[in-house]
Amino acid sequence: MTGRFITLEGGEGAGKSSNLEWLAGQLRAAGKRVLLTREPGGTPLAESIRNVLLTPSDERMADDTELLLVFAARAQHLEQKIRPALARGEWVLCDRFVDATWAYQGAGRGLNESAIARLEQLVVRDTVPDMTLLFDVPVDVGMARAGKRAALDRIEQEDRAFFDRIRQCYLDRAKAEPGRFRMLDASQPLDQVREQMQPLLEEMLTWQ
Amino acid sequence: MTGRFITLEGGEGAGKSSNLEWLAGQLRAAGKRVLLTREPGGTPLAESIRNVLLTPSDERMADDTELLLVFAARAQHLEQKIRPALARGEWVLCDRFVDATWAYQGAGRGLNESAIARLEQLVVRDTVPDMTLLFDVPVDVGMARAGKRAALDRIEQEDRAFFDRIRQCYLDRAKAEPGRFRMLDASQPLDQVREQMQPLLEEMLTWQ
Repeated sequence: MTGRFITLEGGEGAGKSSNLEWLAGQLRAAGKRVLLTREPGGTPLAESIRNVLLTPSDERMADDTELLLVFAARAQHLEQKIRPALARGEWVLCDRFVDATWAYQGAGRGLNESAIARLEQLVVRDTVPDMTLLFDVPVDVGMARAGKRAALDRIEQEDRAFFDRIRQCYLDRAKAEPGRFRMLDASQPLDQVREQMQPLLEEMLTWQ
Repeated sequence: MTGRFITLEGGEGAGKSSNLEWLAGQLRAAGKRVLLTREPGGTPLAESIRNVLLTPSDERMADDTELLLVFAARAQHLEQKIRPALARGEWVLCDRFVDATWAYQGAGRGLNESAIARLEQLVVRDTVPDMTLLFDVPVDVGMARAGKRAALDRIEQEDRAFFDRIRQCYLDRAKAEPGRFRMLDASQPLDQVREQMQPLLEEMLTWQ
């Protein structure tokens, strides 16, 4: 018996975290064993790679280095945590996965998309999510929710364009892979987002 | 004007370090600007990636993670140090480069060679060494020189085979790329190895 791999994606203030907890609770109530995890990170070694990625330095990080570190952490997370849990028959709920690399590093930061594609093939292989929930929210709404309204006032037009590109990338990916993605209108209040999740939960519970 | 990129390769106790210093001195005496560097590492950020690679951990490092970290450090080294020096017209002498990944991670540890090839293409691109000096020495001789005779008595047959595979990989690569590799018999005394290097130095100095 193999488990199921569900990823949650979306920009800032989309409510992924609280919905992740809710979904885990529903699946456990239905008798499933559930593992909650997140990227980048997910294991101590992957977190130490995350630290190299996030620690500010006077030395500019090369674009290729950034991508290789993101995928190094992901390879570790997959081998040490995600694939073993799936092999034990668990349901793995992961807060962000490879779609986030396409959105943030690819569309947002403009890093080499052909490199992302090659690294995805090398590292992810056949561990593709069974379902990806995209919590879509307009950039302004998400920013305000994330308590970043003050910050948004200061950031430049270019930064706003950065978040627009991320949102658009997620929407394009959802459109290109309708079999895997399920869209949620995350601009609605939390209880209404959960109503949108109910049929998706029922769909998951029909999986054999 | 573009510089020249020379790499030095070989197993343990082959005398790379002292020959690197000697070669740098000769090139400087001939009026060249020379940068000495080494892998893995070569910049502060690349060294911090090296630390993640070398720090012992209870968590097994995934094979893909190891390769991705090796190439993440190399991408940083190339962008921040090697390529800028070459663009300034300097001679870059590097103690180990991508051939060492083929020898140690590929042949030695048996990691995925197709992954190494793909990462090499992504990261090294056209920054291929102009000349690679291979300091070849039989495993026993190199081990004894490196002061590891006592250790060698304890290690198992499999470990000896590990170093044999590394040497054989270097020999195979030199044979496959005779235009780039120059072989040196590093089992000879240091002054005789330098006699072998003299015509190679003269060859380098004919380059325009």
